[in-house]
Amino acid sequence: MSHQRYQNCIEACNACAVICNHCAIACLNEEDVSHLKRCIQLDLECAAICRSTAEVMSLGSNYSEHFCRICAEICNACAEECEKHASMGMEHCRECAEACRKCAQACEEMTHVA
Amino acid sequence: MSHQRYQNCIEACNACAVICNHCAIACLNEEDVSHLKRCIQLDLECAAICRSTAEVMSLGSNYSEHFCRICAEICNACAEECEKHASMGMEHCRECAEACRKCAQACEEMTHVA
Amino acid sequence: MSHQRYQNCIEACNACAVICNHCAIACLNEEDVSHLKRCIQLDLECAAICRSTAEVMSLGSNYSEHFCRICAEICNACAEECEKHASMGMEHCRECAEACRKCAQACEEMTHVA
Amino acid sequence: MSHQRYQNCIEACNACAVICNHCAIACLNEEDVSHLKRCIQLDLECAAICRSTAEVMSLGSNYSEHFCRICAEICNACAEECEKHASMGMEHCRECAEACRKCAQACEEMTHVA
Repeated sequence: MSHQRYQNCIEACNACAVICNHCAIACLNEEDVSHLKRCIQLDLECAAICRSTAEVMSLGSNYSEHFCRICAEICNACAEECEKHASMGMEHCRECAEACRKCAQACEEMTHVA
Repeated sequence: MSHQRYQNCIEACNACAVICNHCAIACLNEEDVSHLKRCIQLDLECAAICRSTAEVMSLGSNYSEHFCRICAEICNACAEECEKHASMGMEHCRECAEACRKCAQACEEMTHVA
Repeated sequence: MSHQRYQNCIEACNACAVICNHCAIACLNEEDVSHLKRCIQLDLECAAICRSTAEVMSLGSNYSEHFCRICAEICNACAEECEKHASMGMEHCRECAEACRKCAQACEEMTHVA
Repeated sequence: MSHQRYQNCIEACNACAVICNHCAIACLNEEDVSHLKRCIQLDLECAAICRSTAEVMSLGSNYSEHFCRICAEICNACAEECEKHASMGMEHCRECAEACRKCAQACEEMTHVA
């Protein structure tokens, strides 16, 4: 495995991790946080999983595809939740959903090439 | 899911991550490091995966079992490699193999209960 | 630097990181989450900083004391916030405050010995 | 603190963490690894510190500047070591030194603005 092969996916995972953390903190600071509990929970899980997926790939690990598979799953789950709030005007959720969908796609591509 | 259920496994993962990093650094400082390349590689992967597995469990994530499954696999692979060097007198590899086997077992138990 | 010297502090940091994540998630699931925003924010920061402090120590890094210094600071800040809610009966905040104070002390000891 | 302010620095930290891990693994796979021990050690520390600095910034933490200060220091130390090997033709060390210098500069800018 060469790390160049994973480069795009690593970048998508790191970008998604950052945006998920931003979204969690932004949700926490919304006036009506009680409707955003599930969003914050998924943001935090997605950030943790994206970070670890990027790290495992950056080590050139044989377990990279396993991580990409789980990462695609949580990214899609997080995107689905964020899209609900995005449609009601929450910009941080719109950005987060976009980053999650992009990361999910990059991760899925890794699992197909493997 | 309650976090108490995962408590033992989280502790085993964190302990294993620390010992894998110690083992990697100790291998790196051995006189004949060229025979320990695979050991260092697996130590670093195992440390990263154990850390992320502990983190995902500590968030109470539904993806915890997925992580435990991969974590058990890398822990057993790392233990197998370390056991080769342990049998030739390397104490840091003996300690690492022991922590890895213990962590693998704790992770496997999580995947059965699920 | 020997890693044994850091062993207690590493364990305190990892334990604190786990409990801070638990506290963040438990706060998020309280009925009146709006009063717990600052607590969740500090829990998440404290978890991230404790995890990284443990990792840096486990690599035997010369930067360990720098991390211990910051870690003691955030742990005390997080403990202070959690103690407010602990006094009003929140068990997860009581546990978190305890882990934070213990970790802060372990980190402070590292910076004195250095 | 707005996360936009930190965006460039977060990206530089994440990019540097990835390249440091690549460099560590590439060094490990060089024929003469014994001359690269210090490089691998610094790569691993730098990767860990860059990752945590990015994470702490992505949470909008008040401790971000503290992390940026340490991160600039390890990045410069790692760059200095890598530059020795880069000048002898090691491409992965050249790339790593470049990413480290760029990250150090981004981190230093954060500590001045603060």
